[in-house]
Amino acid sequence: MLSDKAAPGEIARPPRLMAAMRHAVLGGGKRLRPFLAIEAARLFGVEGQGPLRAGCAVELLHCYSLAHDDLPSMDDDDLRRGRPTVHKAYDEATAILVGDALQTLAFEVLADPATAADPAIRSDLVLGLARASGLGGMVGGQLLDLTAEGRYGAVNMGEADVRLLQMMKTGAILTFSVEAGALLGQADAAARRTLVEYGRALGAAFQVADDILDREASPEALGKRTGKDQEKGKATLVDLLGMDGARHECRQLVARAESALDGFGPEAQILREAVRFVVERQV
Amino acid sequence: MLSDKAAPGEIARPPRLMAAMRHAVLGGGKRLRPFLAIEAARLFGVEGQGPLRAGCAVELLHCYSLAHDDLPSMDDDDLRRGRPTVHKAYDEATAILVGDALQTLAFEVLADPATAADPAIRSDLVLGLARASGLGGMVGGQLLDLTAEGRYGAVNMGEADVRLLQMMKTGAILTFSVEAGALLGQADAAARRTLVEYGRALGAAFQVADDILDREASPEALGKRTGKDQEKGKATLVDLLGMDGARHECRQLVARAESALDGFGPEAQILREAVRFVVERQV
Repeated sequence: MLSDKAAPGEIARPPRLMAAMRHAVLGGGKRLRPFLAIEAARLFGVEGQGPLRAGCAVELLHCYSLAHDDLPSMDDDDLRRGRPTVHKAYDEATAILVGDALQTLAFEVLADPATAADPAIRSDLVLGLARASGLGGMVGGQLLDLTAEGRYGAVNMGEADVRLLQMMKTGAILTFSVEAGALLGQADAAARRTLVEYGRALGAAFQVADDILDREASPEALGKRTGKDQEKGKATLVDLLGMDGARHECRQLVARAESALDGFGPEAQILREAVRFVVERQV
Repeated sequence: MLSDKAAPGEIARPPRLMAAMRHAVLGGGKRLRPFLAIEAARLFGVEGQGPLRAGCAVELLHCYSLAHDDLPSMDDDDLRRGRPTVHKAYDEATAILVGDALQTLAFEVLADPATAADPAIRSDLVLGLARASGLGGMVGGQLLDLTAEGRYGAVNMGEADVRLLQMMKTGAILTFSVEAGALLGQADAAARRTLVEYGRALGAAFQVADDILDREASPEALGKRTGKDQEKGKATLVDLLGMDGARHECRQLVARAESALDGFGPEAQILREAVRFVVERQV
Protein backbone atom coordinates (compact mmCIF):
# COMPACT_ATOMS: atom_id res chain seq x y z
CA MET A 1 0.00 0.00 0.00
CA LEU A 2 1.23 3.44 -0.93
CA SER A 3 -0.83 5.20 1.67
CA ASP A 4 -2.83 4.60 4.79
CA LYS A 5 -5.73 6.65 3.46
CA ALA A 6 -7.03 5.33 0.19
CA ALA A 7 -10.82 5.39 0.42
CA PRO A 8 -12.36 6.22 -2.96
CA GLY A 9 -12.38 9.94 -3.68
CA GLU A 10 -10.17 10.71 -0.70
CA ILE A 11 -6.82 12.36 -0.82
CA ALA A 12 -3.70 11.05 0.81
CA ARG A 13 -0.85 12.94 2.38
CA PRO A 14 2.20 10.83 1.53
CA PRO A 15 4.10 10.28 4.82
CA ARG A 16 7.55 10.71 3.23
CA LEU A 17 6.58 14.09 1.77
CA MET A 18 4.97 15.20 5.05
CA ALA A 19 8.08 14.29 7.03
CA ALA A 20 10.39 16.06 4.58
CA MET A 21 8.19 19.18 4.64
CA ARG A 22 8.41 19.19 8.43
CA HIS A 23 12.19 18.85 8.21
CA ALA A 24 12.29 21.89 5.93
CA VAL A 25 10.03 24.05 8.07
CA LEU A 26 10.44 23.01 11.70
CA GLY A 27 14.25 23.08 11.94
CA GLY A 28 14.64 26.38 13.73
CA GLY A 29 15.37 29.74 12.13
CA LYS A 30 14.82 33.25 13.39
CA ARG A 31 11.18 33.45 12.18
CA LEU A 32 11.85 37.09 11.32
CA ARG A 33 9.19 37.19 8.58
CA PRO A 34 6.27 36.00 10.76
CA PHE A 35 7.47 38.34 13.51
CA LEU A 36 7.24 41.28 11.10
CA ALA A 37 3.76 40.31 9.85
CA ILE A 38 2.44 39.82 13.37
CA GLU A 39 3.92 43.04 14.78
CA ALA A 40 2.85 45.14 11.80
CA ALA A 41 -0.73 43.88 12.16
CA ARG A 42 -0.62 44.65 15.89
CA LEU A 43 -0.01 48.35 15.06
CA PHE A 44 -3.60 48.38 13.82
CA GLY A 45 -4.99 46.37 16.71
CA VAL A 46 -5.24 43.13 14.72
CA GLU A 47 -4.06 40.01 16.57
CA GLY A 48 -4.64 36.26 16.66
CA GLN A 49 -5.20 33.72 13.87
CA GLY A 50 -5.04 36.16 10.94
CA PRO A 51 -1.55 37.57 11.47
CA LEU A 52 -0.30 34.19 12.69
CA ARG A 53 -1.50 32.50 9.51
CA ALA A 54 -0.16 35.25 7.24
CA GLY A 55 3.18 35.00 9.06
CA CYS A 56 3.19 31.22 8.63
CA ALA A 57 2.49 31.61 4.91
CA VAL A 58 5.49 33.88 4.44
CA GLU A 59 7.69 31.50 6.45
CA LEU A 60 6.47 28.51 4.38
CA LEU A 61 7.40 30.40 1.25
CA HIS A 62 10.80 31.28 2.70
CA CYS A 63 11.43 27.63 3.63
CA TYR A 64 10.47 26.48 0.12
CA SER A 65 13.05 28.87 -1.31
CA LEU A 66 15.73 27.53 1.04
CA ALA A 67 15.00 23.89 0.09
CA HIS A 68 15.36 24.76 -3.61
CA ASP A 69 18.32 27.14 -3.27
CA ASP A 70 20.26 24.44 -1.40
CA LEU A 71 19.89 21.87 -4.22
CA PRO A 72 23.05 20.55 -5.93
CA SER A 73 22.24 22.31 -9.21
CA MET A 74 21.70 25.62 -7.37
CA ASP A 75 23.93 26.60 -4.41
CA ASP A 76 24.81 22.97 -3.51
CA ASP A 77 24.65 23.30 0.28
CA ASP A 78 24.74 20.44 2.78
CA LEU A 79 24.01 22.42 5.94
CA ARG A 80 21.11 24.69 6.81
CA ARG A 81 20.17 25.97 10.26
CA GLY A 82 22.80 23.57 11.63
CA ARG A 83 21.10 20.47 10.14
CA PRO A 84 21.37 18.56 6.85
CA THR A 85 19.59 20.29 3.96
CA VAL A 86 16.41 18.59 2.68
CA HIS A 87 18.11 16.82 -0.25
CA LYS A 88 20.83 15.54 2.10
CA ALA A 89 18.35 14.25 4.70
CA TYR A 90 16.05 12.81 1.97
CA ASP A 91 16.90 13.01 -1.73
CA GLU A 92 16.90 15.53 -4.54
CA ALA A 93 13.48 14.63 -5.98
CA THR A 94 11.89 14.83 -2.53
CA ALA A 95 13.55 18.22 -1.90
CA ILE A 96 12.15 19.60 -5.16
CA LEU A 97 8.65 18.34 -4.28
CA VAL A 98 8.97 19.68 -0.73
CA GLY A 99 9.64 23.15 -2.09
CA ASP A 100 6.79 22.86 -4.59
CA ALA A 101 4.32 21.74 -1.91
CA LEU A 102 5.45 24.41 0.58
CA GLN A 103 4.92 27.14 -1.99
CA THR A 104 1.41 25.81 -2.68
CA LEU A 105 0.68 25.59 1.04
CA ALA A 106 1.70 29.23 1.52
CA PHE A 107 -0.98 30.35 -0.94
CA GLU A 108 -3.51 27.88 0.48
CA VAL A 109 -3.01 29.28 3.98
CA LEU A 110 -3.49 32.87 2.76
CA ALA A 111 -6.64 32.09 0.74
CA ASP A 112 -8.32 30.20 3.58
CA PRO A 113 -11.19 32.10 5.26
CA ALA A 114 -9.50 31.50 8.65
CA THR A 115 -6.85 34.08 7.65
CA ALA A 116 -9.31 36.94 7.15
CA ALA A 117 -13.10 37.01 7.00
CA ASP A 118 -12.96 39.59 4.19
CA PRO A 119 -12.11 37.84 0.89
CA ALA A 120 -10.68 41.09 -0.50
CA ILE A 121 -7.97 40.96 2.16
CA ARG A 122 -7.19 37.31 1.39
CA SER A 123 -7.01 38.02 -2.30
CA ASP A 124 -4.69 41.02 -1.73
CA LEU A 125 -2.45 38.89 0.48
CA VAL A 126 -2.16 36.23 -2.25
CA LEU A 127 -1.43 38.86 -4.89
CA GLY A 128 1.17 40.57 -2.71
CA LEU A 129 2.99 37.35 -1.87
CA ALA A 130 2.94 36.24 -5.51
CA ARG A 131 4.39 39.55 -6.73
CA ALA A 132 7.13 39.46 -4.09
CA SER A 133 8.14 35.89 -4.81
CA GLY A 134 7.91 35.27 -8.56
CA LEU A 135 9.72 36.31 -11.73
CA GLY A 136 10.09 39.94 -10.62
CA GLY A 137 10.84 39.06 -6.98
CA MET A 138 12.56 36.26 -5.08
CA VAL A 139 12.80 33.72 -7.90
CA GLY A 140 14.01 36.33 -10.36
CA GLY A 141 16.57 37.41 -7.74
CA GLN A 142 17.83 33.85 -7.38
CA LEU A 143 18.29 33.63 -11.16
CA LEU A 144 20.24 36.93 -11.07
CA ASP A 145 22.32 35.48 -8.23
CA LEU A 146 23.25 32.44 -10.35
CA THR A 147 23.97 34.82 -13.24
CA ALA A 148 26.25 36.84 -10.94
CA GLU A 149 28.37 33.71 -10.40
CA GLY A 150 29.20 33.85 -14.10
CA ARG A 151 27.57 30.53 -14.90
CA TYR A 152 25.71 32.00 -17.88
CA GLY A 153 28.67 33.94 -19.21
CA ALA A 154 31.00 36.64 -17.92
CA VAL A 155 29.20 39.36 -15.98
CA ASN A 156 30.33 42.65 -14.56
CA MET A 157 28.36 43.48 -11.41
CA GLY A 158 28.05 47.13 -10.49
CA GLU A 159 26.64 48.53 -7.27
CA ALA A 160 23.19 49.04 -8.84
CA ASP A 161 23.13 45.38 -9.92
CA VAL A 162 24.02 44.11 -6.46
CA ARG A 163 21.35 46.28 -4.90
CA LEU A 164 18.73 45.17 -7.42
CA LEU A 165 19.64 41.51 -6.93
CA GLN A 166 19.38 41.77 -3.15
CA MET A 167 16.15 43.72 -3.25
CA MET A 168 14.61 41.04 -5.41
CA LYS A 169 16.10 37.96 -3.74
CA THR A 170 15.47 38.81 -0.08
CA GLY A 171 14.14 42.37 0.15
CA ALA A 172 10.81 41.82 -1.61
CA ILE A 173 9.61 39.08 0.75
CA LEU A 174 10.82 40.91 3.89
CA THR A 175 8.97 44.01 2.70
CA PHE A 176 5.85 41.97 1.95
CA SER A 177 5.97 40.47 5.47
CA VAL A 178 5.46 43.96 6.90
CA GLU A 179 2.92 44.87 4.23
CA ALA A 180 0.91 41.73 5.06
CA GLY A 181 0.36 43.15 8.53
CA ALA A 182 -0.80 46.44 7.00
CA LEU A 183 -3.23 44.58 4.72
CA LEU A 184 -4.67 42.63 7.64
CA GLY A 185 -4.95 45.86 9.61
CA GLN A 186 -6.68 47.58 6.68
CA ALA A 187 -4.17 50.38 6.98
CA ASP A 188 -4.83 53.50 4.92
CA ALA A 189 -2.58 54.26 1.93
CA ALA A 190 -0.26 56.55 3.91
CA ALA A 191 0.34 54.03 6.72
CA ARG A 192 0.88 51.30 4.17
CA ARG A 193 3.49 53.38 2.30
CA THR A 194 5.21 54.08 5.61
CA LEU A 195 5.42 50.40 6.45
CA VAL A 196 6.67 49.51 2.97
CA GLU A 197 9.42 52.13 3.44
CA TYR A 198 10.27 50.56 6.81
CA GLY A 199 10.27 47.06 5.27
CA ARG A 200 12.56 48.10 2.41
CA ALA A 201 15.11 49.72 4.71
CA LEU A 202 14.98 46.77 7.11
CA GLY A 203 15.36 44.29 4.23
CA ALA A 204 18.36 46.16 2.85
CA ALA A 205 19.93 46.38 6.33
CA PHE A 206 19.33 42.66 6.80
CA GLN A 207 21.17 41.87 3.57
CA VAL A 208 24.20 44.09 4.28
CA ALA A 209 24.41 42.55 7.75
CA ASP A 210 24.23 39.12 6.10
CA ASP A 211 27.13 39.97 3.80
CA ILE A 212 29.17 41.17 6.78
CA LEU A 213 28.34 38.01 8.78
CA ASP A 214 29.18 35.81 5.79
CA ARG A 215 32.66 37.39 5.83
CA GLU A 216 33.23 37.41 9.60
CA ALA A 217 31.26 34.63 11.33
CA SER A 218 32.12 30.94 11.56
CA PRO A 219 30.00 28.25 9.88
CA GLU A 220 29.43 26.78 13.36
CA ALA A 221 27.91 30.02 14.65
CA LEU A 222 25.77 30.56 11.55
CA GLY A 223 24.70 26.94 11.07
CA LYS A 224 25.53 27.16 7.35
CA ARG A 225 28.51 27.44 5.04
CA THR A 226 30.19 30.88 4.96
CA GLY A 227 32.46 32.72 2.53
CA LYS A 228 30.51 31.32 -0.44
CA ASP A 229 30.27 34.59 -2.33
CA GLN A 230 34.02 35.11 -2.20
CA GLU A 231 34.66 31.54 -3.38
CA LYS A 232 32.40 32.06 -6.35
CA GLY A 233 33.82 35.50 -7.18
CA LYS A 234 30.45 37.13 -6.55
CA ALA A 235 30.55 40.81 -5.63
CA THR A 236 28.70 41.83 -2.45
CA LEU A 237 28.25 45.29 -0.97
CA VAL A 238 31.19 44.50 1.34
CA ASP A 239 33.40 44.19 -1.76
CA LEU A 240 31.99 47.27 -3.39
CA LEU A 241 31.89 49.56 -0.33
CA GLY A 242 34.57 47.99 1.87
CA MET A 243 33.84 46.73 5.40
CA ASP A 244 33.72 50.27 6.84
CA GLY A 245 31.47 51.45 4.04
CA ALA A 246 29.15 48.49 4.57
CA ARG A 247 28.91 49.22 8.30
CA HIS A 248 28.21 52.86 7.53
CA GLU A 249 25.44 51.88 5.11
CA CYS A 250 23.97 49.58 7.76
CA ARG A 251 23.75 52.50 10.21
CA GLN A 252 22.09 54.69 7.60
CA LEU A 253 19.52 51.99 6.83
CA VAL A 254 18.78 51.55 10.52
CA ALA A 255 18.13 55.29 10.81
CA ARG A 256 15.91 55.26 7.74
CA ALA A 257 13.86 52.29 8.97
CA GLU A 258 13.44 53.87 12.39
CA SER A 259 12.41 57.24 11.03
CA ALA A 260 9.85 55.59 8.74
CA LEU A 261 8.01 54.67 11.94
CA ASP A 262 7.98 58.26 13.28
CA GLY A 263 4.26 58.56 12.68
CA PHE A 264 3.61 55.70 15.11
CA GLY A 265 3.85 55.92 18.88
CA PRO A 266 5.15 53.50 21.51
CA GLU A 267 3.12 50.67 19.91
CA ALA A 268 5.84 50.54 17.20
CA GLN A 269 8.69 50.19 19.70
CA ILE A 270 9.20 46.48 19.03
CA LEU A 271 9.52 47.11 15.26
CA ARG A 272 12.11 49.82 16.01
CA GLU A 273 14.06 47.34 18.14
CA ALA A 274 13.76 44.71 15.40
CA VAL A 275 15.93 46.86 13.11
CA ARG A 276 18.75 46.84 15.66
CA PHE A 277 18.34 43.11 16.15
CA VAL A 278 18.64 42.58 12.41
CA VAL A 279 21.95 44.41 12.12
CA GLU A 280 23.48 43.33 15.44
CA ARG A 281 22.57 39.63 15.26
CA GLN A 282 25.40 37.10 15.23
CA VAL A 283 23.41 34.42 13.35
CA MET B 1 24.75 44.81 -16.11
CA LEU B 2 22.46 42.05 -14.92
CA SER B 3 19.33 43.66 -16.21
CA ASP B 4 18.11 46.39 -18.50
CA LYS B 5 15.72 47.69 -15.84
CA ALA B 6 17.54 48.69 -12.70
CA ALA B 7 16.09 51.99 -11.60
CA PRO B 8 15.95 52.23 -7.77
CA GLY B 9 12.96 50.46 -6.33
CA GLU B 10 12.08 48.81 -9.62
CA ILE B 11 11.87 45.14 -10.31
CA ALA B 12 13.54 43.35 -13.14
CA ARG B 13 12.38 40.37 -15.15
CA PRO B 14 15.59 38.49 -15.87
CA PRO B 15 15.61 37.80 -19.65
CA ARG B 16 16.99 34.26 -19.28
CA LEU B 17 14.22 33.29 -16.87
CA MET B 18 11.54 34.92 -19.06
CA ALA B 19 12.77 33.06 -22.15
CA ALA B 20 12.88 29.72 -20.31
CA MET B 21 9.37 30.28 -18.92
CA ARG B 22 8.14 30.92 -22.46
CA HIS B 23 9.86 27.74 -23.62
CA ALA B 24 8.03 25.80 -20.91
CA VAL B 25 4.60 27.30 -21.62
CA LEU B 26 4.42 28.19 -25.31
CA GLY B 27 5.62 24.92 -26.82
CA GLY B 28 2.29 23.50 -27.87
CA GLY B 29 0.19 21.05 -25.90
CA LYS B 30 -3.49 20.26 -26.09
CA ARG B 31 -4.56 23.08 -23.70
CA LEU B 32 -7.19 20.71 -22.36
CA ARG B 33 -7.30 22.37 -18.92
CA PRO B 34 -8.02 25.92 -20.18
CA PHE B 35 -10.59 24.44 -22.57
CA LEU B 36 -12.41 22.81 -19.63
CA ALA B 37 -12.37 26.00 -17.53
CA ILE B 38 -13.60 28.14 -20.41
CA GLU B 39 -16.37 25.74 -21.49
CA ALA B 40 -17.56 25.08 -17.94
CA ALA B 41 -17.85 28.85 -17.31
CA ARG B 42 -19.75 29.23 -20.60
CA LEU B 43 -22.47 26.88 -19.24
CA PHE B 44 -23.35 29.72 -16.87
CA GLY B 45 -23.09 32.46 -19.46
CA VAL B 46 -19.66 33.66 -18.28
CA GLU B 47 -17.16 34.40 -21.05
CA GLY B 48 -14.14 36.59 -21.74
CA GLN B 49 -11.18 37.58 -19.58
CA GLY B 50 -12.23 35.72 -16.43
CA PRO B 51 -12.42 32.17 -17.79
CA LEU B 52 -9.44 32.84 -20.07
CA ARG B 53 -7.30 33.94 -17.13
CA ALA B 54 -8.45 31.05 -14.91
CA GLY B 55 -7.68 28.64 -17.76
CA CYS B 56 -4.23 30.21 -18.21
CA ALA B 57 -3.55 29.85 -14.49
CA VAL B 58 -4.30 26.11 -14.58
CA GLU B 59 -2.14 25.70 -17.69
CA LEU B 60 0.73 27.62 -16.05
CA LEU B 61 0.49 25.29 -13.08
CA HIS B 62 0.43 22.26 -15.38
CA CYS B 63 3.50 23.52 -17.26
CA TYR B 64 5.37 24.08 -13.98
CA SER B 65 4.69 20.47 -13.02
CA LEU B 66 6.00 19.24 -16.39
CA ALA B 67 9.22 21.28 -16.06
CA HIS B 68 9.87 19.77 -12.61
CA ASP B 69 8.73 16.22 -13.42
CA ASP B 70 11.12 16.12 -16.40
CA LEU B 71 14.19 16.97 -14.25
CA PRO B 72 17.04 14.42 -14.07
CA SER B 73 16.35 13.62 -10.41
CA MET B 74 12.65 13.04 -11.17
CA ASP B 75 11.59 11.33 -14.43
CA ASP B 76 14.73 12.36 -16.36
CA ASP B 77 13.11 13.17 -19.68
CA ASP B 78 14.78 14.91 -22.63
CA LEU B 79 11.72 15.37 -24.81
CA ARG B 80 8.40 17.10 -24.15
CA ARG B 81 5.78 18.12 -26.69
CA GLY B 82 8.34 17.18 -29.35
CA ARG B 83 10.93 19.69 -28.09
CA PRO B 84 13.82 19.57 -25.60
CA THR B 85 12.68 19.73 -21.98
CA VAL B 86 13.48 22.95 -20.08
CA HIS B 87 16.60 21.61 -18.36
CA LYS B 88 17.89 20.33 -21.74
CA ALA B 89 17.23 23.62 -23.54
CA TYR B 90 18.61 25.65 -20.59
CA ASP B 91 20.00 24.01 -17.46
CA GLU B 92 18.78 22.30 -14.31
CA ALA B 93 18.83 25.35 -12.04
CA THR B 94 16.93 27.39 -14.60
CA ALA B 95 14.34 24.60 -15.01
CA ILE B 96 13.75 24.49 -11.24
CA LEU B 97 13.32 28.29 -11.13
CA VAL B 98 11.05 28.21 -14.19
CA GLY B 99 8.73 25.79 -12.39
CA ASP B 100 8.84 27.85 -9.21
CA ALA B 101 8.02 31.08 -11.05
CA LEU B 102 5.25 29.47 -13.12
CA GLN B 103 3.57 28.17 -9.99
CA THR B 104 3.72 31.65 -8.45
CA LEU B 105 2.38 33.21 -11.65
CA ALA B 106 -0.59 30.82 -11.64
CA PHE B 107 -1.68 32.13 -8.24
CA GLU B 108 -0.90 35.73 -9.21
CA VAL B 109 -3.15 35.45 -12.27
CA LEU B 110 -6.02 34.02 -10.20
CA ALA B 111 -5.76 36.64 -7.45
CA ASP B 112 -5.68 39.58 -9.88
CA PRO B 113 -8.93 41.62 -10.01
CA ALA B 114 -8.97 41.15 -13.81
CA THR B 115 -9.93 37.49 -13.25
CA ALA B 116 -13.13 38.26 -11.32
CA ALA B 117 -14.47 41.49 -9.88
CA ASP B 118 -15.71 39.63 -6.78
CA PRO B 119 -12.76 38.93 -4.45
CA ALA B 120 -14.62 35.94 -2.95
CA ILE B 121 -14.44 34.21 -6.34
CA ARG B 122 -10.73 34.98 -6.71
CA SER B 123 -10.03 33.71 -3.24
CA ASP B 124 -12.00 30.49 -3.89
CA LEU B 125 -10.12 29.95 -7.14
CA VAL B 126 -6.78 30.28 -5.33
CA LEU B 127 -7.90 27.90 -2.59
CA GLY B 128 -9.22 25.35 -5.09
CA LEU B 129 -6.06 25.38 -7.20
CA ALA B 130 -3.86 25.11 -4.10
CA ARG B 131 -5.80 22.12 -2.76
CA ALA B 132 -5.67 20.35 -6.11
CA SER B 133 -1.96 20.89 -6.58
CA GLY B 134 -0.21 20.53 -3.23
CA LEU B 135 0.60 17.80 -0.72
CA GLY B 136 -2.81 16.12 -1.07
CA GLY B 137 -3.02 16.67 -4.84
CA MET B 138 -0.64 16.81 -7.78
CA VAL B 139 2.64 17.11 -5.85
CA GLY B 140 1.63 14.36 -3.43
CA GLY B 141 0.70 12.23 -6.46
CA GLN B 142 4.13 12.78 -8.01
CA LEU B 143 5.77 11.64 -4.76
CA LEU B 144 3.56 8.52 -4.79
CA ASP B 145 4.60 7.97 -8.41
CA LEU B 146 8.29 8.04 -7.45
CA THR B 147 7.47 5.71 -4.55
CA ALA B 148 5.74 3.34 -6.98
CA GLU B 149 9.01 3.00 -8.90
CA GLY B 150 10.47 1.41 -5.79
CA ARG B 151 13.06 4.11 -5.23
CA TYR B 152 12.15 4.43 -1.54
CA GLY B 153 11.96 0.68 -0.93
CA ALA B 154 10.00 -2.26 -2.32
CA VAL B 155 6.33 -1.46 -2.88
CA ASN B 156 3.37 -3.56 -3.87
CA MET B 157 0.87 -1.53 -5.87
CA GLY B 158 -2.73 -2.64 -5.81
CA GLU B 159 -5.56 -1.30 -7.93
CA ALA B 160 -6.70 1.11 -5.21
CA ASP B 161 -3.17 2.52 -5.00
CA VAL B 162 -2.92 3.08 -8.74
CA ARG B 163 -6.29 4.80 -8.77
CA LEU B 164 -5.39 7.01 -5.82
CA LEU B 165 -2.05 7.94 -7.38
CA GLN B 166 -3.66 8.88 -10.68
CA MET B 167 -6.47 10.81 -9.06
CA MET B 168 -3.92 12.87 -7.13
CA LYS B 169 -1.30 13.29 -9.84
CA THR B 170 -3.51 14.27 -12.79
CA GLY B 171 -7.17 13.92 -11.77
CA ALA B 172 -7.27 16.66 -9.14
CA ILE B 173 -6.12 19.44 -11.49
CA LEU B 174 -8.35 18.28 -14.36
CA THR B 175 -11.29 18.26 -11.97
CA PHE B 176 -10.36 21.70 -10.68
CA SER B 177 -10.22 23.04 -14.24
CA VAL B 178 -13.92 22.26 -14.61
CA GLU B 179 -14.69 23.48 -11.09
CA ALA B 180 -12.96 26.80 -11.85
CA GLY B 181 -15.59 27.41 -14.53
CA ALA B 182 -18.34 26.63 -12.01
CA LEU B 183 -16.80 29.07 -9.51
CA LEU B 184 -16.60 31.83 -12.12
CA GLY B 185 -20.20 31.08 -13.10
CA GLN B 186 -21.31 31.20 -9.46
CA ALA B 187 -22.95 27.82 -9.98
CA ASP B 188 -25.20 26.57 -7.18
CA ALA B 189 -24.05 23.62 -5.06
CA ALA B 190 -25.90 21.02 -7.16
CA ALA B 191 -24.46 22.24 -10.49
CA ARG B 192 -21.02 22.41 -8.93
CA ARG B 193 -21.26 18.81 -7.67
CA THR B 194 -22.40 17.72 -11.12
CA LEU B 195 -19.40 19.36 -12.78
CA VAL B 196 -17.01 17.89 -10.21
CA GLU B 197 -18.46 14.44 -11.01
CA TYR B 198 -17.93 15.15 -14.72
CA GLY B 199 -14.37 16.33 -14.07
CA ARG B 200 -13.49 13.26 -12.03
CA ALA B 201 -14.78 10.84 -14.65
CA LEU B 202 -13.08 12.78 -17.43
CA GLY B 203 -9.81 12.90 -15.48
CA ALA B 204 -9.89 9.16 -14.84
CA ALA B 205 -10.71 8.46 -18.51
CA PHE B 206 -7.85 10.75 -19.55
CA GLN B 207 -5.42 8.77 -17.41
CA VAL B 208 -6.50 5.31 -18.60
CA ALA B 209 -6.28 6.58 -22.19
CA ASP B 210 -2.80 7.89 -21.37
CA ASP B 211 -1.72 4.47 -20.08
CA ILE B 212 -3.07 2.83 -23.25
CA LEU B 213 -1.29 5.39 -25.47
CA ASP B 214 1.96 4.97 -23.53
CA ARG B 215 1.79 1.25 -24.42
CA GLU B 216 0.69 1.59 -28.04
CA ALA B 217 1.80 4.89 -29.55
CA SER B 218 5.25 5.82 -30.87
CA PRO B 219 7.43 8.47 -29.21
CA GLU B 220 7.31 10.38 -32.52
CA ALA B 221 3.51 10.55 -32.46
CA LEU B 222 3.33 11.49 -28.77
CA GLY B 223 6.26 13.91 -28.75
CA LYS B 224 7.64 12.30 -25.60
CA ARG B 225 9.25 9.07 -24.44
CA THR B 226 6.89 6.07 -24.20
CA GLY B 227 6.93 2.76 -22.36
CA LYS B 228 8.47 4.40 -19.28
CA ASP B 229 6.18 2.77 -16.75
CA GLN B 230 7.03 -0.70 -18.04
CA GLU B 231 10.76 0.07 -17.97
CA LYS B 232 10.51 1.14 -14.35
CA GLY B 233 8.31 -1.81 -13.35
CA LYS B 234 5.48 0.56 -12.40
CA ALA B 235 2.00 -0.93 -12.47
CA THR B 236 -0.64 0.92 -14.51
CA LEU B 237 -4.31 0.10 -14.95
CA VAL B 238 -3.37 -1.59 -18.25
CA ASP B 239 -1.26 -4.06 -16.25
CA LEU B 240 -3.89 -4.57 -13.60
CA LEU B 241 -6.96 -4.80 -15.84
CA GLY B 242 -5.41 -5.96 -19.13
CA MET B 243 -5.77 -3.98 -22.37
CA ASP B 244 -9.38 -5.11 -22.88
CA GLY B 245 -10.25 -4.30 -19.28
CA ALA B 246 -8.68 -0.86 -19.63
CA ARG B 247 -10.67 -0.14 -22.79
CA HIS B 248 -13.84 -1.30 -21.05
CA GLU B 249 -13.14 0.99 -18.11
CA CYS B 250 -12.56 3.86 -20.52
CA ARG B 251 -16.01 3.31 -22.05
CA GLN B 252 -17.62 3.22 -18.60
CA LEU B 253 -15.94 6.46 -17.62
CA VAL B 254 -17.06 8.13 -20.83
CA ALA B 255 -20.65 7.12 -20.05
CA ARG B 256 -20.35 8.38 -16.47
CA ALA B 257 -18.92 11.74 -17.56
CA GLU B 258 -21.61 12.16 -20.19
CA SER B 259 -24.45 11.29 -17.85
CA ALA B 260 -23.13 13.71 -15.25
CA LEU B 261 -24.08 16.42 -17.75
CA ASP B 262 -27.68 15.17 -18.18
CA GLY B 263 -29.05 18.15 -16.28
CA PHE B 264 -27.61 20.51 -18.90
CA GLY B 265 -29.01 21.02 -22.39
CA PRO B 266 -27.33 21.55 -25.76
CA GLU B 267 -25.05 24.21 -24.23
CA ALA B 268 -23.05 21.30 -22.70
CA GLN B 269 -22.58 19.53 -26.04
CA ILE B 270 -18.94 20.57 -26.41
CA LEU B 271 -18.10 19.20 -22.96
CA ARG B 272 -19.78 15.89 -23.92
CA GLU B 273 -17.68 15.76 -27.06
CA ALA B 274 -14.56 16.58 -25.04
CA VAL B 275 -14.85 13.23 -23.24
CA ARG B 276 -14.72 11.35 -26.54
CA PHE B 277 -11.78 13.47 -27.66
CA VAL B 278 -9.94 12.61 -24.46
CA VAL B 279 -10.25 8.85 -24.94
CA GLU B 280 -9.92 8.74 -28.73
CA ARG B 281 -6.97 11.12 -29.08
CA GLN B 282 -3.75 9.77 -30.58
CA VAL B 283 -1.48 12.27 -28.77
